[in-house]
Amino acid sequence: MVKDIMSKALPTETKGVRVLFGEFVNIDYLYSYLGTIIYAESGMQNIFILENKFWGRMLFINNNLQFTSRDEFIYHESLVHIPVQSTPEGSIKKVLICGGGDYGAARELLKYPEIEEVVIVDIDPKIPKLVEEYFPELLPEDPKDPRLKLIVEDAFVMVQKYLDEGKAFDLVIIDSTDPDISDTGITQELSHALFGVKFHQMLYELCPKGVVVQQCGTPFTMKNIFTETYKTFINVYPAKEVFCYRSNVPSFGSDNAFIMRCPYPNPEIPKWKELPNVYFYSHEIHRSAFGLPKFWREALAV
Amino acid sequence: MVKDIMSKALPTETKGVRVLFGEFVNIDYLYSYLGTIIYAESGMQNIFILENKFWGRMLFINNNLQFTSRDEFIYHESLVHIPVQSTPEGSIKKVLICGGGDYGAARELLKYPEIEEVVIVDIDPKIPKLVEEYFPELLPEDPKDPRLKLIVEDAFVMVQKYLDEGKAFDLVIIDSTDPDISDTGITQELSHALFGVKFHQMLYELCPKGVVVQQCGTPFTMKNIFTETYKTFINVYPAKEVFCYRSNVPSFGSDNAFIMRCPYPNPEIPKWKELPNVYFYSHEIHRSAFGLPKFWREALAV
Repeated sequence: MVKDIMSKALPTETKGVRVLFGEFVNIDYLYSYLGTIIYAESGMQNIFILENKFWGRMLFINNNLQFTSRDEFIYHESLVHIPVQSTPEGSIKKVLICGGGDYGAARELLKYPEIEEVVIVDIDPKIPKLVEEYFPELLPEDPKDPRLKLIVEDAFVMVQKYLDEGKAFDLVIIDSTDPDISDTGITQELSHALFGVKFHQMLYELCPKGVVVQQCGTPFTMKNIFTETYKTFINVYPAKEVFCYRSNVPSFGSDNAFIMRCPYPNPEIPKWKELPNVYFYSHEIHRSAFGLPKFWREALAV
Repeated sequence: MVKDIMSKALPTETKGVRVLFGEFVNIDYLYSYLGTIIYAESGMQNIFILENKFWGRMLFINNNLQFTSRDEFIYHESLVHIPVQSTPEGSIKKVLICGGGDYGAARELLKYPEIEEVVIVDIDPKIPKLVEEYFPELLPEDPKDPRLKLIVEDAFVMVQKYLDEGKAFDLVIIDSTDPDISDTGITQELSHALFGVKFHQMLYELCPKGVVVQQCGTPFTMKNIFTETYKTFINVYPAKEVFCYRSNVPSFGSDNAFIMRCPYPNPEIPKWKELPNVYFYSHEIHRSAFGLPKFWREALAV
């Protein structure tokens, strides 16, 4: 199936506040979007939705772009299909998504009939509601899929609860905002705890023989997040089971990094014969995703 | 060797015109740079140099970014080392660069002692002069390297002259601005002729058993340039010798495409044991570069 996401303008709304919005990528460097703000709210997190002729609708949390209508599929397919297909076919039955209240990762997981349970645990109740209203394409093919459960809760608290109950998962996906690890270690993002050693020790217990994958930003502009997340992983999991892969999500500017604990051998070789209906992912791109630039390798030599 | 290009601010000048410059990537979508214009001229091409805290110095031609101090090495290493290392060790002795007046590609080529001759043919005499003054790091390690020749001439004219003289090359690199192939086929870029069938027919004659590689923009935002360049290649060269690879140059926003004619088998396997002093390129990244997203493959199914 062909999805025409390249080079053409998308339809836009006419209501709302017309702005030139600048997203700071780094000091003195911004991505700028002419567009219309069709939703804005300052709550637990500052959220707004911008409509732009090129990107379609764009969701921002705390002034940082989370995804766009045009290229969210690249991010979500990379986050889900690479870890799933790294395992022997049929290994993944129960999946926990920490964050991911936008449903995008769940949509991809539910494409596999072999997957029996998908739980989203997101701290912010607004995200799923906004997606239902403004980004219906992120919902699973069957939005009432009985395999899907959405829990509004701090993932840290929920994981502890699952541990107390003796529950286990085959795959844990951490799909959160970037943790804003600055040079001085100061952070204001809600997601910060999801990048730490304590949280991963709990996940290791919750998912002792399974896969854990975490999005960790764009290393070229966020080197600290990349190295700190990797350090957390090798601190908690056996170092030889820790891998890094990358994906180019155009609206993120430079390659996004994903750190993964995978106890199965050779995750760079896709293992499922079955390929769901996808637009970015292929076995070709799977193999390619594990090849890293020399300066990424150097940043991981910690 | 480690090059610290990630996450830190670069030193800047204080003289010049302070601006917020917006580079249009697409309709209603811009990259914006706060910076100082330290050089500007409207000549054969409109050229200016912006100094920005994050990117360092940035060269713009006709308002389009050509390269930055911070990440030009990724572009130039991808443009040079992938084609060179796709061939059996020692196959490349004589190289023609069409465009490339910034010396970056030549700098990379001259790292190989096996390469005997590198000719740059650039139409614009200003580019080499500006690089010598403002981007000395793009010059070859030995700027007086006797293997290097710079010719200010239209590459189209020069290639015809070489054909008349019976000269031959082992590798031709087309390192030009994007050709601005719009939906309606209108173009104003000097580089336009370098993307056409006539030019490649001449190159095929000039380099009958060698490699020809052409940078062809970022397909996510310039789908037409990607498909048109590929069509030119399969029109002129044997289709089974035409390959595509990609590289993520962060200042370009999304993955850049390179189309290559390579008559040697399996170009995705690097063949040289020797690895010059590089910061991005590795055999790992070489193999990975040939894995393309599903939607790129679909855009190439022409």
